[in-house]
Order: sequence, then structure tokens, then C-alpha cells
Amino acid sequence: MSDCIDIHTHVVPERFPAYAGKGTNVPWPSMADAGPCHKHIMISGKVYRTVADGCWSAPRRVEGMDAMRVTRQALSPMPELMSYWLPLADAKVLIRHVNDEIAAMVARSPGRFIGLGGVPLQDVDAAIAELEYLVHNLAFRGVEIASHVNGTPIGDARFEPFFAAAERLGAAVFVHALRALGAERIVGPFSEQAVLFPGEIALAAASMITGGMAARHPGLRIAFSHGGGGLAMLLPRLVHAWNVLPRAKEALAESPATYARRFFYDALVFDPAAIRFLVERYGSSQIVLGSDYPFNMGDPDPVGTLERAGLGAGVTSAITLTNALRFLGL
Amino acid sequence: MSDCIDIHTHVVPERFPAYAGKGTNVPWPSMADAGPCHKHIMISGKVYRTVADGCWSAPRRVEGMDAMRVTRQALSPMPELMSYWLPLADAKVLIRHVNDEIAAMVARSPGRFIGLGGVPLQDVDAAIAELEYLVHNLAFRGVEIASHVNGTPIGDARFEPFFAAAERLGAAVFVHALRALGAERIVGPFSEQAVLFPGEIALAAASMITGGMAARHPGLRIAFSHGGGGLAMLLPRLVHAWNVLPRAKEALAESPATYARRFFYDALVFDPAAIRFLVERYGSSQIVLGSDYPFNMGDPDPVGTLERAGLGAGVTSAITLTNALRFLGL
Repeated sequence: MSDCIDIHTHVVPERFPAYAGKGTNVPWPSMADAGPCHKHIMISGKVYRTVADGCWSAPRRVEGMDAMRVTRQALSPMPELMSYWLPLADAKVLIRHVNDEIAAMVARSPGRFIGLGGVPLQDVDAAIAELEYLVHNLAFRGVEIASHVNGTPIGDARFEPFFAAAERLGAAVFVHALRALGAERIVGPFSEQAVLFPGEIALAAASMITGGMAARHPGLRIAFSHGGGGLAMLLPRLVHAWNVLPRAKEALAESPATYARRFFYDALVFDPAAIRFLVERYGSSQIVLGSDYPFNMGDPDPVGTLERAGLGAGVTSAITLTNALRFLGL
Repeated sequence: MSDCIDIHTHVVPERFPAYAGKGTNVPWPSMADAGPCHKHIMISGKVYRTVADGCWSAPRRVEGMDAMRVTRQALSPMPELMSYWLPLADAKVLIRHVNDEIAAMVARSPGRFIGLGGVPLQDVDAAIAELEYLVHNLAFRGVEIASHVNGTPIGDARFEPFFAAAERLGAAVFVHALRALGAERIVGPFSEQAVLFPGEIALAAASMITGGMAARHPGLRIAFSHGGGGLAMLLPRLVHAWNVLPRAKEALAESPATYARRFFYDALVFDPAAIRFLVERYGSSQIVLGSDYPFNMGDPDPVGTLERAGLGAGVTSAITLTNALRFLGL
């Protein structure tokens, strides 16, 4: 089997420490049994999600990877565990626990896993400190962040020191949709993850472009989940706006397309035509494999979906391997 | 010049009647001089937008159309004039004024314009009454509606009687993004129209699918502005969700893709590759020409952009003419 890296997979630890903070009604997670090989993630007394042991078991995960023709997974926290809404002291404890659990999984199956940890981005200094821990103590290749931080877009200037630190440390930044905009706009029995994530991640990527963050950090390696969602359709409109709005052209030295083509995007779009469109939009060097393993909104056969795009051996192996090596700084 | 229909263009009347309603602080529009051939649209004492006489002058418009190789335009209100947030009595007066002005423009240049009017969708019965006026009294081919009505998605069941009436009357429905979700997510000097419209229109289209409205009204002819925005990237994800979420599959008899391929989409995406992707996603029979004339976020050369997509004479003429004839019921 040829080497193949899946950059978009998630971890839920098998257990969490009991809450030992000073807050009241803090939505601290715990795990409850849910039959063989499954557990309920409990948050605020409710089942947040029921998950299988692929979430925490390295051997079970390796079985799944072999079946999916994936040799290495980048492991990142289940997005809800990023905990930006928790009191900072609690968030630091929870995120550190998750990061150390990911590190233990990496250690358990050497060569099969790559760590991407979480950071408490509700406090930029604390986030930078945890990023340094990830890189220096755990030898992680980078960090997962959400598409916004309690409503503030990631392209906001307040996050400048964080992205500067990631650039300086050579840490890859994987941006995942979370608590997406527009819950009140869903009609019918479809989930937030299904309907809203593509729009959510598009706005996150757009904010990194239109606010100038991407321009100011040309060395930053950043990837967007779910193929960057609607950005592939939005981008030509941003370019048009840049051409016709003098204040936009004044603020950005180059076209929004220039910055968008420096970003990475996973190919988690469930459709060969959409993968081809991503390659055409951003360039074959910027697309990486992603599965959302082990969740049900993931692609159980990401390599197969990619192969059906018919991009040829060179582009296909760039997407399954070499682009990910570049994104992860390997 | 071969016949070519642009289904996405907007009208602002040269003047509005003075406010004669009973409300206080109603954001009623008025026009103020702004130099040769231009006027300020004033709302609540502020310049909402400064516009050129192409907005209201039929001869000026025809000049523009000739330069753009467009023989016929569907005229719809500038979206802000849909007035869903006005007290109903005021909205009825304002929308009627706009509709009658559009009718006068159609009468002034026979054969060059097709009417798509507004309706006060904050009251479904009043909206149906105005729709009947549009079709029966003004001989309009249909109606423009917004992507949501004061926050309620158009796929919500409360609008069922309106869509049933449009289906029964054979009125085309053109859905335009308006007051888009996510203003707080924009960073930098880019407008709501630039950054948010593609996500906004995607959610409107998704709501018509996921809530079952499209399934219940197979005869409805409906078109989405801005190429349906991010829907082209979102749709395979909705299909995946339908396949893995039992409650979704139970609610919808067919795949979301089936319904999406009944909708029409304009080609206002500023990019030949994106137009090709729309054709691949929805079928060459579902794409129509749109320019957003006369606004600066419009495409000044929609036929040229389409030609650069290199789709061949058959598909190109379907998009410039025959699909629009079908959408408009001509």
C-alpha cells in the first residue's frame, strides 16, 4: 500500500477527568457506556453524541485506516472539545488532557499518527503557550482551530499574534467548522453539520483573506476543512469586488485569488466533480486528503472518491501524500 | 444579434411617493439628486446607495443591453425594495408603486423587458394577492422574493400557500440574496454583497430542498441568484447526509440532488470554471444568464464570461435563451 495521509480525522478520549474547577454549570464533558465498543459523550447532562471506539482506540483506528487505504492520520480533537466557551482555567485543563491523549495515541502506533492539538483560543496568550507545548513537548506538527472564536472570525486582528506564532514555529493550522452560523435557517431533519459547515468554513477562509491576515503571514501553512466549502464558488466574487471596490483594492496588495491559492483544502466534498473543481480553483498542489474519520458525516472511502475524480496518477499522489507532507512540514 | 435573456437585473424607480402611512420612523425610501444621471437612494435619512439612471430609464437601459449583447431583461426590484420589514400597509403601497413602475418600463420598450415584481411576503395572503395582480393585471411572468423573510427561511412551511399559488399561476419565482446572514463575520473593507450573498442564497435553496417544499411542488419554476452560491459545493454533502441520517431519508422521497436539479440558477459567478461546474452539477438545462445590471457587483459582460466557459454552441444558447424561456414560461 502506498503512503497516504488523511489530514482530517478526530479523536475523543476514552475518558475525561472529573471536573475539578471552580465554575458552576460548566459544560464539562464525560463519557458514559453505550453498549459494546460505544460510548455516549455527555455534556451538561445530555448525550452530545454517541461514538465508537475508533475515537480513542489506536488499534481499532489502524484497522479502519487499512480498510480505507490510509497509512497515516493526522489526529485532531473532536471540534466541540476545542472549548472556546469554557472559562479559561477549565479550557486549559480540558484541552491539555485531550492533547496528551492524542500524544499517547501517536506513541502507541509509531508512524501511523501525526498530532494536531487544540489550543484555548479565547485567550491568545494561552493559545500561544499551548501551541508551544504542542510543538516542543509533544512534537505535534500543528494545531486545529475552529472557524470562529465565540463569534469572532479567525481573520480578526486580535488573532494576529497567534498566527504569527504558528508561522514562526512552523506549525500547520487546520481550520474546522464549528458551531456554525445559521442554525435558524435549517428547515427539516438535517443537521447543522450537514447544512451549515460548508458556508461556515467559507466565511472563515474569506476572513483570512479579506482582513489581510493571509497577506501579512505568507509563510503560514493553513488548511480548511470540507474543501473550504462555498469558498470555491465565492472566490471569483471576492476577486470581482476587489476589482471594483477601491477601498478593497487599497487594503489588499494582491487579488483574493492569490491568497486563496496559498491555502490548503481537504478533499472532503463527497463528489469527484467537486474535487476536480477544487483542483482547478486552487491548484493541484493545495488539495489534501480528508475523511472526518470516525464520524458519520465522514467519507468512508476518501481515496476511492478521489480516484473517481480521474485526475491522473501525479495529481492523485500529490493529494494523497506530497501536499500533506508539505502542509504538515514533514 | 441573437435573442438573449438576462433574468437577473434590478430596477429602482426614479421617484417614490411621499410617505403617507400612519407609522413613525418607517424606513420609507426617497430619491435625492446626485449629479448628472445619478441619484441617491435615501432611507432613514442616510444614503443607502447611489445609483445611475439605468435603474429607471428604459432607453438608457436598452443602450446598456445592446452593449452587453442582451436582447431582453427580466426586471425585478432592487432587493431592498422588497420591504418585508415595513408595516404591511406601507409595504403594500411601496411594492405596488415599484411594480407599476416596472410595468411602465415594460410598456415603454415592448419586447425588451419582462416583469418580475415584488410581493409583501411578511403576510402570505397579501403576497398571494399581489402575485395575482402581477400575473393578471400587469402580465408579469413572475415574482422576485428574498432568500429569507425577516429571518425565516423561505423553505419554512408558513410559505407553503405562496409557493402553491406560484405553481398554480405558473409564475416564475426568482430568489435573490438579501440582508445576508453573517455581517459580524466579515473582516476588512468588503461588502455584505461581496462576501455573504453566495452563502445566503445557498441556505435559501437548501431550505427549499431539506424542508420538502421542492418535493411538494414539482411544478414550481424557481431560480436562485448568484449561481445558487455555495449550494454547488454543499449539495453532495446534503446527499451524503440524506444517505446516512435515517430521519432525513424518511422525510425526503428522493435525493436532495434530484430536487436541486429541478431548480434554475443564474450564471452570475464571474468565472468560466464556475459556470462549467454549475452545468456539471445541475445540468445544462438549468442555468440561465444573469448580470445584476446595473449594479457594480454585476458582471458587465455576462455573455462574454459565459462564452469563455467554452461550453459549445448548443449549451451556450440554452443558457442565453431557451432555459430562460422555460423558466419564465414563455
